[in-house]
Amino acid sequence: MAQVYERVALIGLGLIAGSMAHAMKRRGLAGHIAGYARSAETRAAAAQIGFVDSVHDSAAEAVAGADLVVLAVPVGAMGAVAEEIAPFLKAGVTVTDVGSVKQAVIDAVGPHLPEGVHFIPGHPLAGTEHSGPYSGFATLFENRWWLLTPVEGSDADAVARLSALCTGMGANVDTMDAPHHDLVLAVVSHTPHLIAYTMVGVADHLRRVSQTEVIKYSASGFRDFTRIAASDPTMWRDVFLTNKEATLDILGRFTEELFVLQRAIRMGDGPLLHEYFTRTRAIRRGIIEAGQDTDAPDFGRVRKD
Amino acid sequence: MAQVYERVALIGLGLIAGSMAHAMKRRGLAGHIAGYARSAETRAAAAQIGFVDSVHDSAAEAVAGADLVVLAVPVGAMGAVAEEIAPFLKAGVTVTDVGSVKQAVIDAVGPHLPEGVHFIPGHPLAGTEHSGPYSGFATLFENRWWLLTPVEGSDADAVARLSALCTGMGANVDTMDAPHHDLVLAVVSHTPHLIAYTMVGVADHLRRVSQTEVIKYSASGFRDFTRIAASDPTMWRDVFLTNKEATLDILGRFTEELFVLQRAIRMGDGPLLHEYFTRTRAIRRGIIEAGQDTDAPDFGRVRKD
Repeated sequence: MAQVYERVALIGLGLIAGSMAHAMKRRGLAGHIAGYARSAETRAAAAQIGFVDSVHDSAAEAVAGADLVVLAVPVGAMGAVAEEIAPFLKAGVTVTDVGSVKQAVIDAVGPHLPEGVHFIPGHPLAGTEHSGPYSGFATLFENRWWLLTPVEGSDADAVARLSALCTGMGANVDTMDAPHHDLVLAVVSHTPHLIAYTMVGVADHLRRVSQTEVIKYSASGFRDFTRIAASDPTMWRDVFLTNKEATLDILGRFTEELFVLQRAIRMGDGPLLHEYFTRTRAIRRGIIEAGQDTDAPDFGRVRKD
Repeated sequence: MAQVYERVALIGLGLIAGSMAHAMKRRGLAGHIAGYARSAETRAAAAQIGFVDSVHDSAAEAVAGADLVVLAVPVGAMGAVAEEIAPFLKAGVTVTDVGSVKQAVIDAVGPHLPEGVHFIPGHPLAGTEHSGPYSGFATLFENRWWLLTPVEGSDADAVARLSALCTGMGANVDTMDAPHHDLVLAVVSHTPHLIAYTMVGVADHLRRVSQTEVIKYSASGFRDFTRIAASDPTMWRDVFLTNKEATLDILGRFTEELFVLQRAIRMGDGPLLHEYFTRTRAIRRGIIEAGQDTDAPDFGRVRKD
């Protein structure tokens, strides 16, 4: 595949950045990949694994001369990083990010970027339960969605070039505005994660059911929840703090619905339960028919490369 | 493997009974497998697939001469079936069931069974999102738990024989009392299922996020929920109606926990969220260390045979 960017700078070297580096190298999408991470241990790991061509001691040094800068740090850290790198950005550079929330990133990063920089926020819908520099792999993005949320005045050519990089790494690209992205993700990702964390927390507290039994018999449904609830704590803390309104909205609806079902159980209303469960089954069928099903779980999926 | 029962009668011919039949045949665990299902269509399918040696037009006829009778119908139908077959049971027969709730089955079935019948309730912790006679496969129980909840006066030899059948089909057997079973399952299975159904229901109602988008981007966590929420509606209605107390107990705890996290999001309490998510991650690690992890999802797992 043809090179898309001459020099790419990855700020943050965890699961997503590492997977991007592996994918770009395998497909020849970038001439040189420069990397920076806050932790010296992570920098050393990235250098040792070798998925970056150069490791730098500061974000400012890493972005020097880059055509594409990828902010791959927790959403809460984006603003400070943008402020730090802003004076060192090349004119005409594209800056993107991989945060799970988009409006908050736009608000935090946008004001720091100088004129002549193309800011195109992005979000690859891909992940595993693992994190850190050793967790990345080249095929993480294959057949996954990569959502771009261009801001007002985003240059069409710059968006097309970034899209080409994403599709080059195997992803499918869609664009939408940031508030819509944040609402959709609150439904399909953020609220499900919070619920999974909660259910695992309940099991942890329960004294009458020993820890051993919860683990031993976890295959009955609970194990899928633990897989979701094993994702990176810092990343998810920031997601909920920065997509607060949409998450609280969906959580409110969730609790209302749950109370309807809880009341049906208490009152012995079998028809309501049966009708409800039949309807949700139809949604699953829709996903299968839309070809969006795979046998692999979404999180904790097997590393294949 | 040696034959464990000369004649087995399966009452109900869905996913579990069908899988038992496939597994017993493959391993030579039963001399003759007789089958009955309420629906003529299901009976015809079972005969056509051939996983039973004889298909009968009534449960009474199917159980005649059987050494083992397996009640594989929804929990709410167990009592009526037991009443119907009781007069036709051979002396010394073992009657078991595969219901997801145990105390309710004991209360419904026990009173109908005559003296000289060994009643040993059971529950295989295995399933997929599919149901019906075509959904069964021989390896469904491999490395899965099969919980037996013997009642007062259960014959030790009869329990050992039934255990041998379960382990012969590849399962691991544990015994416990019925109330404890129902509480453990409320934690590891029943409440997680209700929550998954609820979350899918919320997504279904949401007008601002189109159905298409929910399906399209479902890989971000939501898809695991839809898989769980696609299980058989009748079976799950009966589970919640018959394991009411334990489910409501765990649901109450779940809501309390959820409100703690919801409030933390609203108040911007990052440390609380981070600490909570770190703790749940440790539970996941416990499951992996206990060797209870597989890469396959628990529900909707691939059919392998």
